[in-house]
Amino acid sequence: MNSKKIPLPSVKLTDKMLAPRIEQCIKVTIPTSLQKCRDTGRIDAFKLEWTENSGKECPHIYWDSDVAKVLEAVAYSLAISPDEELEKYYDELVDLIVSAQQPDGYLNTHFTVTEKDQRWQKLNSKHELYCAGHLMEAAVAGFEQLGKRKFLDAMCRYADYIDSVFGEAEGKRYGIPGHEEIELALVKLYRATGVERYLKLAEYFINARGRDPEFFSRESGYPFEPEIYQAHKPVREQSDAVGHAVRALYLYCGMADVGKETGDETLITACKRLWKSITEKRMYISGGVGSSFFHEAFTTDYDLPNDSRSYAESCAGIALALFAHRMSEITGQAGYLDTLERALFNVICAGISLSGDEFFYSNFLEMNDNFVSYNFGNRTRQKWFFCSCCPTSYCRFFTQLPRMIWSEDGEFLRLNIPVANVLTLPDKCVEVIGNYPQDNRIKVIIRRAGSFKFAMRIPGFAKSAVFRCNGEICTPETVNGFARFDRNWQDGDEISCELDMPFELIRCHEKVSMNRGKAAIMRGPLLYCCENIDHDCDVSSLLIDRKTDFTVEESSGLENISAVKCRGLAESGETGQLYSNAVPQSRTCVITAIPYAWWQNRGETNMTVWLREY
Amino acid sequence: MNSKKIPLPSVKLTDKMLAPRIEQCIKVTIPTSLQKCRDTGRIDAFKLEWTENSGKECPHIYWDSDVAKVLEAVAYSLAISPDEELEKYYDELVDLIVSAQQPDGYLNTHFTVTEKDQRWQKLNSKHELYCAGHLMEAAVAGFEQLGKRKFLDAMCRYADYIDSVFGEAEGKRYGIPGHEEIELALVKLYRATGVERYLKLAEYFINARGRDPEFFSRESGYPFEPEIYQAHKPVREQSDAVGHAVRALYLYCGMADVGKETGDETLITACKRLWKSITEKRMYISGGVGSSFFHEAFTTDYDLPNDSRSYAESCAGIALALFAHRMSEITGQAGYLDTLERALFNVICAGISLSGDEFFYSNFLEMNDNFVSYNFGNRTRQKWFFCSCCPTSYCRFFTQLPRMIWSEDGEFLRLNIPVANVLTLPDKCVEVIGNYPQDNRIKVIIRRAGSFKFAMRIPGFAKSAVFRCNGEICTPETVNGFARFDRNWQDGDEISCELDMPFELIRCHEKVSMNRGKAAIMRGPLLYCCENIDHDCDVSSLLIDRKTDFTVEESSGLENISAVKCRGLAESGETGQLYSNAVPQSRTCVITAIPYAWWQNRGETNMTVWLREY
Repeated sequence: MNSKKIPLPSVKLTDKMLAPRIEQCIKVTIPTSLQKCRDTGRIDAFKLEWTENSGKECPHIYWDSDVAKVLEAVAYSLAISPDEELEKYYDELVDLIVSAQQPDGYLNTHFTVTEKDQRWQKLNSKHELYCAGHLMEAAVAGFEQLGKRKFLDAMCRYADYIDSVFGEAEGKRYGIPGHEEIELALVKLYRATGVERYLKLAEYFINARGRDPEFFSRESGYPFEPEIYQAHKPVREQSDAVGHAVRALYLYCGMADVGKETGDETLITACKRLWKSITEKRMYISGGVGSSFFHEAFTTDYDLPNDSRSYAESCAGIALALFAHRMSEITGQAGYLDTLERALFNVICAGISLSGDEFFYSNFLEMNDNFVSYNFGNRTRQKWFFCSCCPTSYCRFFTQLPRMIWSEDGEFLRLNIPVANVLTLPDKCVEVIGNYPQDNRIKVIIRRAGSFKFAMRIPGFAKSAVFRCNGEICTPETVNGFARFDRNWQDGDEISCELDMPFELIRCHEKVSMNRGKAAIMRGPLLYCCENIDHDCDVSSLLIDRKTDFTVEESSGLENISAVKCRGLAESGETGQLYSNAVPQSRTCVITAIPYAWWQNRGETNMTVWLREY
Repeated sequence: MNSKKIPLPSVKLTDKMLAPRIEQCIKVTIPTSLQKCRDTGRIDAFKLEWTENSGKECPHIYWDSDVAKVLEAVAYSLAISPDEELEKYYDELVDLIVSAQQPDGYLNTHFTVTEKDQRWQKLNSKHELYCAGHLMEAAVAGFEQLGKRKFLDAMCRYADYIDSVFGEAEGKRYGIPGHEEIELALVKLYRATGVERYLKLAEYFINARGRDPEFFSRESGYPFEPEIYQAHKPVREQSDAVGHAVRALYLYCGMADVGKETGDETLITACKRLWKSITEKRMYISGGVGSSFFHEAFTTDYDLPNDSRSYAESCAGIALALFAHRMSEITGQAGYLDTLERALFNVICAGISLSGDEFFYSNFLEMNDNFVSYNFGNRTRQKWFFCSCCPTSYCRFFTQLPRMIWSEDGEFLRLNIPVANVLTLPDKCVEVIGNYPQDNRIKVIIRRAGSFKFAMRIPGFAKSAVFRCNGEICTPETVNGFARFDRNWQDGDEISCELDMPFELIRCHEKVSMNRGKAAIMRGPLLYCCENIDHDCDVSSLLIDRKTDFTVEESSGLENISAVKCRGLAESGETGQLYSNAVPQSRTCVITAIPYAWWQNRGETNMTVWLREY
C-alpha cells in the first residue's frame, strides 16, 4: 500500500476515552518527564561534565534514550498544540544534545565520560545503538513536525559514523544491537532525508541478526541464551516471538519498515508469521505481551499467568500497537487494527494513571494480597523508575496517536479507529461522532463537500455491522475488513454504523491452564475488570453467572466511563487454616466491572480480570 | 526432652512406600552419585592438582559439599547394610579428603587451588562455610555410625581453625555464612566430641546473623537484599520465613540445635514463630517450600503458585523434614510430625524417581504444555545437575530416615511415624504392621516381653482413632498427640489403631488465589494427583464432583501403590482461538488419581494436584 502520512495536527480527538489521555499527556506527562530528566541528571549529562570525583551519578547507559523520547514527544506536542516557551526550551535542549556530539559523529553521554575505551564493545547490554536510535527518532520528529534541521543533521552525522563502523564491507565490523531500535530509526532517517545509506544500514542490522547466535556470549564472556535478543537464528527463519518483548517488537517494526521500503517480501512474510505467534498464542487478553518478569520476556505458547509473576510491560504494549499499525499500513488489512485497539484500550491505557503522572511498568491482570514485587512490578503506579522507559514511552505514544486514527492509502481515506474525532485536511473535513468503544454506534459526518473514496474499518470485535447512508440502510462493499464508500460527498452527508458488539463473556484457549473455568467481560476491544472497591468481598471470591445480563451503570466514579453490573456469587469459606476440608459457601451478589485500563484510579485496591464462572 | 538416639541399624522399614525408597537409595542413588562425583571431577578435586592450564574444570565452590553429602550417606548406608568393598572405598575417600587439608586446618578444594587470596572474602556467595559444614556432618556420621575417628579429627582441626578466624574476641573477625549449614554441623561436632568450643562457634554464627544487615552488600559491592540470606534482622526477631528456602531451613535447624544444647528458650521461641509462618502461610500442600524460582525463595503469605514459576526445591522439602524432626524431638509435640509426614510422603518422595537415579530440583503441583524452564526446573527428572545438591541430599536423607521413625525420650519409647517396620533394641523388639498411610489400620506387636512405656503418635490428619489392646477396645491417655501405654508387655501383645482417615477433598485458604474453586484429593498425609496417562483428555480439563465417592483401585501400574477413582467432568471447548466467547462443554468422566510423589514414573505426562470442583 502506498500510504500518505496524515499530518499530526489534522486529527483532533474528541472522544471520551483517548482525548483526555492525550490532553493529560501534553499537560502533565511530558512536563513531568522533562522535570524528572532534569532532576535525575539525565539532561545535564549532555554537558559531559561528569567525572569520577564529581559526586554526581554517572550517566546511565539508557539515560540518553529517555531524553530523546521526551524530546520526540515534545515535537509532536508542539505540532498539536504550539507553545512558544516549550519550543524555546526544545531548541535549547537540541543545542545541548548536539554540543555533546564528538568530532567523529559519536553521541553517547555514558561512553563519552566513562568506559571511553568500551565504545561498541558491549553491544548486548549497554544500549549504545538503542540510544542512538531514539536520538534519531527524536531528530526526525523535530524535522517532520517542526521543520527543524539542526538535530536531524547531527543525527545524520551520527548515522554516517555508525555506518562507517558496522557492515559487510572491508574495514567494517560485525555487530548487532542487544536492544533493537536503531533499525526502525534508520528507516525513519532514510524517509526524512532520502539518504539510501541509512536504509541499507538498517537492512544490515536486520540481516546480521541471528547469523552468529553466539556473538553476545562471546562478546560478554557470559553464556547468554541468544533467544533473549532474538539472535538465535536469522530473522527470516524466526517463527515464534521469543525473548525480551520490547526488543522483539522493535525488531519486528524494523523488519516491517525495511521490508516496506525495500520491497523485500521475505521480511513481511516473517513479520506475519511472528504476528501470528504473538496474537494467536502469546498475548494477554489486554494486548499485553511478554508474560515473564524474568528477562521481561515472551515464554511459551499459552503461558499467560495473571499475577505478579507475569509482566506485560507498558512499553511492550505500546510496541505491539506500533507494530500493528505498521502491519495494517503495509497490508491494508483491518485485522491488525483489532489488536492495535486491544492494546490501546487496555494494556496501554492501564499503564498510566488518569492524572498522567503515574505509571505501571508491568500490567498484571490480577492484583491480590499475595503480591510479590519482581523487577519493576508494583501494586500501584509509580512516579518514575530507575530505568524509566515506560513514562517516556507514554510521552511519545499518546502524542503521535492521532496519526494512527486515519490513513490515506492513495485511493481511500481510511478510518482506522472509529473513535470520535475531527479530521481536517486541506481538501477534506470529516467528523466522527459516538462513544466507541463504550458504545456500538458510530456516525461519520462529511463536513466539507468533495469527491473522495472513504473506507471505514469494521472492528473485528463486532459480529456484524449495519450501515446507513443519510438514514437509509446501505450495504457497502467490504474489502480487507473496511467498508468502502465512494461518492460525491455533500456537506452534512452522514454514514452511520451500528455494530453488533454486545457485552460478552470471553474465555481463553483451553491451554491457558491458569484460566480454565474462568471468563472475562469484554465489550468490543474493551476489557473489564473488577476492583475490591466496588465489592464487599475480595474479588477473588467472585463467580460470574454464565448467563448473566449486563447492565450499564453510568456512575462508576470515573469521569466519562461507565461501569457494568452482572449477576454472580460471592464465595466464602474462611477457616483460617492453610489447608482444610471445609466446603466454601456462596451467596448471590452483584458484580461490578469497569474498563480494565481505568483500574487503580480510585485508590489502591485488589483487582481481577478473570472471574470463575458457573 | 531428653531423647536418646535410636541407633540407625535398629530400625528396619518393611512398609510399601518408604522401604523401597531406602533400598533403592542404597542400591542405586548412592553408587550413582559417587560415580557422578568421580566423573565430574568432584573427587579428584581433593588431589589439589588443578591448575589454570590443566584443561580440567576448576573445582566449583560447592563441589566439596556434594562429595561430603554422599560420604555422609555412605556412612549411614554401611551402618544399615555393611559392605566391605564400599567401606574400603569410604576409607580411601576419607584419606584423600584429609590429605587436602592445609597445615592451618583449612580444607576447601576451590580456594586452595584458585582464588587463593579470597579465603573468607566472599561469604555471601562462595559457599565456603557451607562446604565446611557438610564435611563436618559427614565426619560425624562416619564416627557415629562406623566409629572412625580420622575424618572427625581432621574436621575438629578445621573447626578449630574457623574458630580462630570468626568471633567476638580480640583478633577475630565478624562473619556469617551466605548459605547456612555450618551452624547445625558445629552442633553435631560438639555432640560427637563434647568440645564446647564448637557449640559456642555455632552460637556465634547464629547470634551474628542479622546484626549487620548490610554485611553481604558491602562485602560483595552489590546491593543484595539481606532477606535472601535471612540476614535482615537478628534471628530472634525474625517472624516470617524469608529468602532462599534451603538456607532458611538450615538456619532454623541450627537455631533449634543451639537452643536445645544451650537451653536458650529464645531461640526455640523464634523457631516456633518461624515454623508457624511456614506451615500456616507459606507451605505447599505437598510440604514443598520456597514458592519462587527467583532466588529459590519464600515469597509472601499465601503466594503458592502451582506451575513452573514456582519452585519447592527437593532440598527444601528435605530441610523442612529435618527441621520438623528437630522441633518434635525438642518439644515432644506430635504436630510437627504431621508436617514431617506431609513433606516425606509428598514433596520428598516426588523429587526422586522410583528407579532412584533421576531427580527433580523443583517440584511443581502442575505440569502442563506451557511449561517454562526457570533455574533448574524441568518437565522430567534429571540424572544430575550442574549444581547437584538435590541428588546428594537424597543420598543422605533416605539413609538416615529410619532414625526418625522412633524416638526414646527417656520415659517413653515413641513411635513417630507409624509405617510398617521392626525396631530391635538391646532390650526391646517391636513390630509395626500395616499399610499406613495408604491404609488407616496400624498394628503394633510386642516381639519381646518387657516392661516399658510406649507412646504412639496419632497422626493429626486423622479425625479420631480407635485403639484396641489385644483385641479389646482401650482408651489410652493422649499427651501432645501421642497415645500412651504402660504395661508389662508379653511377647505377642498387640495394640491396634484404626484411624478415621478417609479420602477427602482439601481446599486452600481463600487467599491462595490460584486455587480458588479448586480441591485436592488427600488421604491422611498422602496427596494425590492426576496424570494425563490415566485420562483421555488433558488433566487441566477435569472437574471433580464435590460429593464424589472414592474407590480404591489396586492396579495403578505402580508396584504396591493404589490409585483412587472419583466422579467428575471433562470439559472441552476447543475453538483454536486464543480468545473467544465459546461456552465450554462438559461430559461426565471418571477421574483417576495416584499419590503425587509417585507421579511421572510411568512416562512423561502432564499432571495436576488441584482440580476445579463443582
